[in-house]
This record gives sequence, structure tokens and C-alpha cells, in this order.
Amino acid sequence: MLESLKEATLEANLEIVRRGLVLYTFGNASGISRDEGLVVIKPSGVDYDRLKPEHMVVTDLEGAIVEGELRPSSDLKTHLALYKAFEEIGAVVHTHSENATAWAQAGREIPALGTTHADYFHGPVPCTRELTDDEIEGDYVLNTGTAIIDRFAGIDPLAVPAVLVAGHAPFAWGRDPHEASHNAVVLEAVAKMAFMTVMLNAQCGVSKTLLDRHYFRKHGARATYGQEKLI
Amino acid sequence: MLESLKEATLEANLEIVRRGLVLYTFGNASGISRDEGLVVIKPSGVDYDRLKPEHMVVTDLEGAIVEGELRPSSDLKTHLALYKAFEEIGAVVHTHSENATAWAQAGREIPALGTTHADYFHGPVPCTRELTDDEIEGDYVLNTGTAIIDRFAGIDPLAVPAVLVAGHAPFAWGRDPHEASHNAVVLEAVAKMAFMTVMLNAQCGVSKTLLDRHYFRKHGARATYGQEKLI
Amino acid sequence: MLESLKEATLEANLEIVRRGLVLYTFGNASGISRDEGLVVIKPSGVDYDRLKPEHMVVTDLEGAIVEGELRPSSDLKTHLALYKAFEEIGAVVHTHSENATAWAQAGREIPALGTTHADYFHGPVPCTRELTDDEIEGDYVLNTGTAIIDRFAGIDPLAVPAVLVAGHAPFAWGRDPHEASHNAVVLEAVAKMAFMTVMLNAQCGVSKTLLDRHYFRKHGARATYGQEKLI
Amino acid sequence: MLESLKEATLEANLEIVRRGLVLYTFGNASGISRDEGLVVIKPSGVDYDRLKPEHMVVTDLEGAIVEGELRPSSDLKTHLALYKAFEEIGAVVHTHSENATAWAQAGREIPALGTTHADYFHGPVPCTRELTDDEIEGDYVLNTGTAIIDRFAGIDPLAVPAVLVAGHAPFAWGRDPHEASHNAVVLEAVAKMAFMTVMLNAQCGVSKTLLDRHYFRKHGARATYGQEKLI
Repeated sequence: MLESLKEATLEANLEIVRRGLVLYTFGNASGISRDEGLVVIKPSGVDYDRLKPEHMVVTDLEGAIVEGELRPSSDLKTHLALYKAFEEIGAVVHTHSENATAWAQAGREIPALGTTHADYFHGPVPCTRELTDDEIEGDYVLNTGTAIIDRFAGIDPLAVPAVLVAGHAPFAWGRDPHEASHNAVVLEAVAKMAFMTVMLNAQCGVSKTLLDRHYFRKHGARATYGQEKLI
Repeated sequence: MLESLKEATLEANLEIVRRGLVLYTFGNASGISRDEGLVVIKPSGVDYDRLKPEHMVVTDLEGAIVEGELRPSSDLKTHLALYKAFEEIGAVVHTHSENATAWAQAGREIPALGTTHADYFHGPVPCTRELTDDEIEGDYVLNTGTAIIDRFAGIDPLAVPAVLVAGHAPFAWGRDPHEASHNAVVLEAVAKMAFMTVMLNAQCGVSKTLLDRHYFRKHGARATYGQEKLI
Repeated sequence: MLESLKEATLEANLEIVRRGLVLYTFGNASGISRDEGLVVIKPSGVDYDRLKPEHMVVTDLEGAIVEGELRPSSDLKTHLALYKAFEEIGAVVHTHSENATAWAQAGREIPALGTTHADYFHGPVPCTRELTDDEIEGDYVLNTGTAIIDRFAGIDPLAVPAVLVAGHAPFAWGRDPHEASHNAVVLEAVAKMAFMTVMLNAQCGVSKTLLDRHYFRKHGARATYGQEKLI
Repeated sequence: MLESLKEATLEANLEIVRRGLVLYTFGNASGISRDEGLVVIKPSGVDYDRLKPEHMVVTDLEGAIVEGELRPSSDLKTHLALYKAFEEIGAVVHTHSENATAWAQAGREIPALGTTHADYFHGPVPCTRELTDDEIEGDYVLNTGTAIIDRFAGIDPLAVPAVLVAGHAPFAWGRDPHEASHNAVVLEAVAKMAFMTVMLNAQCGVSKTLLDRHYFRKHGARATYGQEKLI
């Protein structure tokens, strides 16, 4: 079942490895079939170079395993929470890529400092609040998803397809696994350049006009995002 | 037509990939035949590993497509503006290479801090002003070229064969595609070393005498640049 | 003798090379058979690409060579001191990996700034005091071990499986050679991200609750570490 | 003639490329036969991947070409000056490696911050004064050598086998081409770690005792360096 989604999800998992975003097994990608309400996700703790499409785990939106003999990624509940809240997205990628993680550890959003950023993210890449002790002691992985969703109140998740979880690492997403992994890779490059830019003491970011121009150059008719509030 | 120029332009496009200046499709190189008034440029959004000489797009200096079935790079108008204004140059390369882009995002010129710089750039690598809102809303790609040309008033473009576009990324050029891609690669190395040098709190750059000495060691008779004003 | 331990120890030595932690011969890994009281360690100054299991040197806990024609790593006495003091560990890895070494040279512990850290290290990665002149003039390699052991008073070495030796470089360890080299590799990634995080002026580290949560997610029953004092 | 020296010198040239110290043709290595008073050096501007032993240029100590059809490296006179002044050395390597060059551009010596440094360099890696305008306008390459030699008054060149030329880049040397290229590679690693250490605001370097201990562990009888003044 879901053969093409399994292949696309595997490919997204391999892309983040090829691009240097993953050390050992620190990362995972999933994809969703909206029609069937099923999610395909990387199994937990399996070496990337042995991964095949048939190793992918299929679950429903509540996390019940529908197919697969391996345990799903331990971050499954975060993925599911994002699929439920962000109905337009078709795939989620989580990594501990070095530069984006440094920003997450610093608890700072990545400001929109240039057109590389603006081509992909229509505004800063937000950083969540820190989880409370109760949230950490409780259903931690689910609560991570909740903190992300809270942070995106008023933000179109397809206009800003990534987030930093404070003290943790980034999540990225997209309409399909290819786009989600692509966004994760670009996020890491943007995070690296933003780090150097901040070090060079940039006084100000890219102007709002330039941000809009670059973003809408790649992202279709202006009307599509007309109702969005940029923060 | 223009077979050797197509091959040289393709090679320049591949060189910036090999040297790590390009993520995905973020970059483009073009070359010009001054005799025929025709420009050869990379097509837009095609993967570098599938590029062949016959994919190159040929346009005239107004951007009309003379040969080629693919759309030219979306930065074509910037390239054309540079060819018109800088009559000595034969090729243009645009990348989002990380270190040079960090300087561009910071809105800072790269100072001449050492002989690696001076061997290629006779003075700082300038940074443009930011574009106005009207320029961004208008013919943005053309206006990017205009901002570069404005910034080079009084600067010989072959003596300083690169620029940083504020909030965007670098452009480099040269007498031919080989030289332009070579300059783009050296610019990235110079930008990286300058970043570290500035971090080490260098108090002052290379002396004017040393700058001249290194530059003119590689760049022919002094008279060639005698009328130039260094800023 | 000890064939499987030799192979595992060789593999740990090769893993730190593959992951970029080693320049030339700057590094060494050892493993211990607790039953036999024998240690297997890399020979001194042999190129990694020529290392074979039979090159491994076998010593007793006092450093007497039991098997092997080559001289053991010059850091042997530090390894032996750690095996004697930390009875739970089964392998030790020493590198001069760039980022962890920068922290060691700065004489600063690596604070727990995120969950990548917390997944492996239950608290900061400590930095030893500097050795005294007498310690340096005396049995320097042994005294390095002593300084590490002093620093771990009150710390469970399996809960914090690495240390920075001030002005020198890191040591990591684990239950077996695979785990020890894995910890050394993760330490280097954590050190790199912590460097960038500190540069971004992080005001505070990961919360104690989040630290516990991540650590105990990977490290078994809470009771195991119940008696531990976190510092 | 000098076949084995040509091969060793070629190998040193290739080693600095393999280790990432060289961009394009920015670097050169030479070796000397003290018995014959002849120097073997890389030809100028030849791609490294086409270099063969027979391309090496042989000159006398005054720079007259004794064998070879290609022009020698443009830095030849600096190499010759070092051979004349430092009688113990057998090879010289010059690169523009990124981290060491950043220190040179900053005009700062690399302090002895750890044992990796102390294993190779018995004290800071010095930085020359800047050349005067007259020196730059005059016999610049020779005067670069003079500035290095001036800086080493009171320093044993084999105890500190590298220098930073202010506003330019490093030179390293050793008893033979293998050792010289090895020192250049270690210098780059030491420069990188020192950069990060300084960024982490290290308050103080490695102690004199530790420096001595590490240095003399690798470099033979103390008496060898007994007459040396460390600065």
C-alpha cells in the first residue's frame, strides 16, 4: 500500500543525509496521504544506508500502526499533531542540523536577512516558547507539536514552512516529501548564512518590500497569500 | 551557433557547483559574444548534473531569445545590464555562496585585508545600496543591475571583478566564463578569510602599497590601470 | 587472544577517523576485558589506514605488555587510570577533534544547551582543572587521568561519558568501543553546536526538566541514576 | 638529478592539496639538497593534478635555474632566503590556508593555547611586521623572506617551524619536505582551533610547563634546545 508515498518518504529521508543534515540516526521524515488519512514515517533508529521503502511504517492519524514490523520514529506524535493542525501540508522533516539547531538552542528566531531566506520563508523562521515542566513530564512529543502549533497562530504554514523548537532543533514541512526535505536543506543553509551575518553585526534585515518581492516571485499569485498576516 | 561559448559557459556553471558555491539551482553563469551581440546563459531551474551545452539559452542584449527551448535564468536582465555597462567583461557569474552572501546580507563591503584579496581585487569588494521599494516593485532584476552599475561609478570593473548586492548575494565577472567563475570561487574564499579576520578584530587592512604590489603583479602593465581611481 | 575486542577496538579507532575527528595520528581508542583484566589499545603513531586487529597492543591494568610487537599509544596510562576508577566503562576514546578541543583550550565546560546534548550527557561536559607544574613534570600521562577522575567526584561516568582536559583535548568513553566512539563523535557535534549557540548569545541553557526528560528517554529506568548528583 | 628530492617535494605539494590547504594554484613547496646547494621547487601556476616529478624546477641558492623548462614558483626568493638563514631546515611550504591566513591578515601571532600546538610549536607562531612601502616597491619576494628572518631573531626555526607573514599568509618548514608539509597541515588545524578558542574568550593560554612538557615529549633531548630563548 502507498508505494509511491513510501518511496518519496524514503527519498526525503535520504536527501537530508546526503546534504549533511543528519549525524547517525538523528532525523526523520514522514509523508501523508490525505485521502486515506494514513501517514508513512521512517522507522526508529534504523541506519539510513539500510533503509528501503518496505521498512517505512504506516500509521493512522492517531498513531496506530496500520502496516510495518518496525517501530515508528519516536517523534511520530509531533508529526501527527502537525498534520492535524496544518491541513495544507503533505510531509514533515525533523533534523538536528547544526546551524538551525544552534539557533534553536539559542532560543532565537532566524530573521529574514536576505533573499535566499525570502525565496523560501515569508518572514522570520519562528522559534517556539520553551515547554513547561508539566509539558515535558507529560506527553512530551505531542506537546512539542502543540508548542509549534501555538507559535503558528496567524502564520500560514506553507508561507513559513519551518520552525525552531526552543532548546531542541528544527522541523520543516511542505506539500510533499520532496518539498519538505528541500525546505529543511535550505533552512540549514539560511541558518548558516544568518549566523555569519549576525556575527558581522548586521544592523538590519532585508526590507519588507524585498522580502515580499522574492517570496512572491517563487510562490504564485499574490491572492493566494492575501489573507495572511505576516509577523 | 556559439558552440565554444556554450561549452565555456556550461563549464563555468559546473565549476561553481564543484567548488561548493551552489546549493540546488541557486546560481547561474553567462557569457557574451561581443562580435555578434549575443549572450549565452544557463536555463532557469535545471539541475546542474543534467546540463549540456545544447541546453544553454541564447539571447540578444535586450533579452529576446534567439535560440533555445528552455527559459533563461530569471536573473538574465541583471546579466544584460552588466554587459551593456561594463564593455570589457565577457562573462558574469551569480551565486548565493555562503560567505560572500553573509557579507551581502550584512550590507558590508569586503575590505582588502590581505594579499589573496589583492591578487584579484584592487580595493574592497563593494556592496550596493539597498534597492528602494519602487525599484523592488518595478523591474526588480533590471534594477539590481542598475544598483551594481551605480556602485561602480569610478571603479574599473576588471580591476574589481565582483560586487555584493545588499541583502541578496554576490555577482562576479571576468573577461571570459573561465575567469568569471574563477573570480567567483576566489571571492568566496576571500569572504571566508575576511570573516575570520574581522572576528579576530583586525585593526587595519592591507596597506595601499602592498595592495598595489600584489594586484599589479598579476595584472599586467601599470599603465593599464593608471587612469583608475581607487576608492 | 581477545579477537572480538581487538576488532571492536580497531573499529572504534576507524570510526573516529571516518567522522573527521582525527588529523594524522592524533587519537586513540582502547577497550577492556573486565573478566581478564586486559586492555586492548591502538599502537602509537601507526597510520590508521594500515591498522589491522593484530596490530592492537594488549596490556594489563598496570601497563605491562601482554601481547603485541608495537608500542602502545603514549596515552595508555590515562586510559588505564580511567578503567581503574570508572568500573562501569568498557572503552575509552581520545581525540583532538576541533570543536571539543577548542572548548578544552578555553578551559570551559560545554553547557547543556539542547536536547542533542541531553540525549547523551546528563549535565555539562566537565572540564578539568589545569595540571600543576609538578604534575606536568612528573608522570604527566597518569596525572592527566587523575585530574579527570578528580573532576568526576559525584558524577556518574556513564551518565556523562566524556570530559575535556583543560588546555588539551577531550576523552570519551562508554560500555564498549562502539559506544565510546559514538560518544566521541556526538561530543564533537555537540561542541560545534554549543560554540555557535554561545556565539549567538544564548542567555540560558536547556531547562533541568527538559534535560532529564531527554536523558532518561534514552537511558533506561530512572532508578539507575536516582542516587546521582547532577552538577 | 635529485630524483628522490623531486619526488619528496612533489609529494609535499600534493599533500597540502589533499588536506584542503590549497585553492587552485595558491601554494608551493620546495626542498633543498644541502650537499649540492640545489633547491627543488614547484613550477609556477601549473595545476596540481598534472604535476609530475620531472616538472619540478632545480635552482641554485641564488635562483639561477639549473634544470627544468618551466618557471619556478614566484615565491622562490622567499624560499631561498629562508634556506640561507635557517641552516637546519630542508624544506619550505607556503600556502594561503584559510585559518592561518586569517590570523596573518589580522596581524596576530597564534598563541600557544593547547597541547596540539605545543606538540609542534614551542611557543606562539610568530607574525612578521608589515613590510615598508620601500620593501614592497623593491625586491618584494626577497624582502618577505627578510621580514621572516628578522622576526626569528632569538627563535630556533626548528622549534617553531612556521610563521605568519602579516597581511599575507603562512610559511612552514621542516627538516625535509614530508615534515614541512606536515607542519603546514598541523598549523592550519591549530589556527582553526585557536580561532574558536579565542572566540570562546579564553582568558589564558597553555601554561609554560605544559608547553615544555608536550614539546619535549616529541622533540628529543632537552639539551638540543637549551640555548634557545623562548619569546
